[in-house]
Amino acid sequence: MADPLSGALPQPADFAPPPDAATRRRWTEADRAQRPARLAALRSRLAAEGIDAYFGMRPEHMRWVTGFTLAEGEEKVASHSGQFLVGADEVILLTDSRYTIQARREAPAAVVDEIGYSLPDRWAGLLARVGARRVALETAVVPHALWQRLEAAAPDVEHVPVDGWLEAMRAVKTADEIERIAAACAVADRALAALLPHIHAGVTEHDLALRLEWLLRTGGAEALAFDVACLGGPEAALPHGAPGDRPVRAGAVLLFDFGAQVDGYRSDMTRTLFVGDPSERDLAVYEVVRRAQLAVIEELEARVSSTPLPDGLALDGVARAVIEHDGRWPAYGHGLGHGIGLATHELPRLGQTATADPLPSPTVFSVEPGIYLEGETGVRIEDLVHLDASRGLLDRLTLFPRTVIALDVGRSSGGGAPSLW
Amino acid sequence: MADPLSGALPQPADFAPPPDAATRRRWTEADRAQRPARLAALRSRLAAEGIDAYFGMRPEHMRWVTGFTLAEGEEKVASHSGQFLVGADEVILLTDSRYTIQARREAPAAVVDEIGYSLPDRWAGLLARVGARRVALETAVVPHALWQRLEAAAPDVEHVPVDGWLEAMRAVKTADEIERIAAACAVADRALAALLPHIHAGVTEHDLALRLEWLLRTGGAEALAFDVACLGGPEAALPHGAPGDRPVRAGAVLLFDFGAQVDGYRSDMTRTLFVGDPSERDLAVYEVVRRAQLAVIEELEARVSSTPLPDGLALDGVARAVIEHDGRWPAYGHGLGHGIGLATHELPRLGQTATADPLPSPTVFSVEPGIYLEGETGVRIEDLVHLDASRGLLDRLTLFPRTVIALDVGRSSGGGAPSLW
Repeated sequence: MADPLSGALPQPADFAPPPDAATRRRWTEADRAQRPARLAALRSRLAAEGIDAYFGMRPEHMRWVTGFTLAEGEEKVASHSGQFLVGADEVILLTDSRYTIQARREAPAAVVDEIGYSLPDRWAGLLARVGARRVALETAVVPHALWQRLEAAAPDVEHVPVDGWLEAMRAVKTADEIERIAAACAVADRALAALLPHIHAGVTEHDLALRLEWLLRTGGAEALAFDVACLGGPEAALPHGAPGDRPVRAGAVLLFDFGAQVDGYRSDMTRTLFVGDPSERDLAVYEVVRRAQLAVIEELEARVSSTPLPDGLALDGVARAVIEHDGRWPAYGHGLGHGIGLATHELPRLGQTATADPLPSPTVFSVEPGIYLEGETGVRIEDLVHLDASRGLLDRLTLFPRTVIALDVGRSSGGGAPSLW
Repeated sequence: MADPLSGALPQPADFAPPPDAATRRRWTEADRAQRPARLAALRSRLAAEGIDAYFGMRPEHMRWVTGFTLAEGEEKVASHSGQFLVGADEVILLTDSRYTIQARREAPAAVVDEIGYSLPDRWAGLLARVGARRVALETAVVPHALWQRLEAAAPDVEHVPVDGWLEAMRAVKTADEIERIAAACAVADRALAALLPHIHAGVTEHDLALRLEWLLRTGGAEALAFDVACLGGPEAALPHGAPGDRPVRAGAVLLFDFGAQVDGYRSDMTRTLFVGDPSERDLAVYEVVRRAQLAVIEELEARVSSTPLPDGLALDGVARAVIEHDGRWPAYGHGLGHGIGLATHELPRLGQTATADPLPSPTVFSVEPGIYLEGETGVRIEDLVHLDASRGLLDRLTLFPRTVIALDVGRSSGGGAPSLW
């Protein structure tokens, strides 16, 4: 490309290629090998609390505990399929006939029970089978009506509300899990780099979002972590806005918030680019956000080997302090970040509503401060970081540069269809 | 194309083009115009039951009642944003700072209240504001833990579990809603027709699913109704299977189950095609499924003006009777069909677990019998139909042919990148 900025622009080849088939097979094997330890940890907690069985409902728990997978949102049409009961000796995976073959294939270590569409009808029998007198249920996700029907179906069994057990276990990641999150980050980094030549004045947010999705889906992602956000100028002030038919304008910001899913594990990144020459105000906002994010990273680096580890409430305060000390613009109203893995948002939580509990380790979470000026502009910078206290390690998994990138919009789009088939 | 079958293959131009901008504006206006009547119907039911307010949580209810939209699965990260409280005089739409601007824009008739991330802290005040002494909550979706915290936060207010109120109202569709479902059907019909030339031996299920998704997303769909299923040969026996890296084989079936979303409204269709020469067994299975579906359509046509209308339990029995009378293979284990609209699965329900209540009208639902032979083959045929008793009308909205389509796999793929940009 001829323009003077192009040499400095990130290129797809700057980032790791998608995982090969051998790597994916290794991950599958690693999951299989780790599931007994996951179950042992869950059973040990059950034993410590005097509970005999655990009933799981979250799709990410299904996959982590049993191997059974549902697509995003599929749980809404899957009835009870994938829900599972962990007893002392066995894991019972519930299905209806639509999912039975898949369940046997994906969860060979579980007992697949085709219960059909009514769990209450089978509940007492299931509990009796695993000998449960006290059963733990995920109170944050079990619908109230189902809870009541299950209690009524097995009145002699105590239904114990539990919250965050598997979430806390899953927040501590194994090397194989972190590898997959890093791979999902690289897929996202590469895709954004490949998109840059297509960003020009006049192309719509919607078209850029669709093209970025295409680059993700043909570049190693089996799915998106969530719908791509591409928001220009004042739209970037909507932290969860959706791309529109608005054309990209020179002199405005262009914010991308997106993530890939690789072998079940997700990434999440935000970059705020500049189309044409940035305004002084936008550049100044960007610089404050960049410094706020950097302050968090530096705090993490400084304290990664300390005991206790920093907490999500204090880290949020570190980013907020930078923005407040600058004083020109209000800090973000959302949280500083969130854990990520099989779900896009999981533990740990970082923000004003987080607890002062030290971060888990090893773990992966986002660091994503922002400044939003309604009707004017918005800037957010989001990276995933991997924290491992035992190795004194704080690694960025998102490697796309955070420097100011101002795209020369006089440049042509490169035209034509993406040659991805 | 040179092969003798091509002339008979459906072409994209056989189906309606995607809606233009004027049509979409008309739909937006129609929604705005209809919301007061929707609210009036809800308030009238509240009054009849002596309840003062309704708390809504389902994303499809958010859109129908207020106009606020979330992407598929976004409710998992949106905290309470989009949830709403309908009182006698106002609708309060809850948000946190991430969604406030969007809420004001999409739901101008609602009072947007940025409650942040903890609903229980604000619950008593919200109920007091609308003067509620009895509040209805959607017991099928409110998590048990939230229910308990809300009850504790407003102990003087009676929390009344309700189920299916808005679902039943939404099952009865207006002309503007049916237009959008029909448009989503046409987008899907066109996309499958455009895909046919790309189906050849050796291409994988995954590649065909991705290409079909691309054709949908660039052909008028703002999103998928659900992940595309493309399943070849024995995989077609998995009613909810996911496409794999399995190459398409001649002499086997190839099942596509997919849907488009147009202006929020969804379609859902299944076609089972034949790659190369069909086996006699597969053809015979197909014929039984086709006859089972046709029997349901004919029953609906015969009874569309009768009182009462047929019910979902009896209609399921009509399809099942055809398969059982044939006697060679077992009938499907899933339901016969489901309503569809802003959600992929909604009321009415048709199947063995459906009630004997007459169908609503006007309404839209799927008719999708199947036969699944584990390890061997699977066939399902699914169309959406529009039933309107007052006009004596039973219309298929899915227009892609249901005749046997055997694809000549000797044909080349047409090659190259889709010229869709």
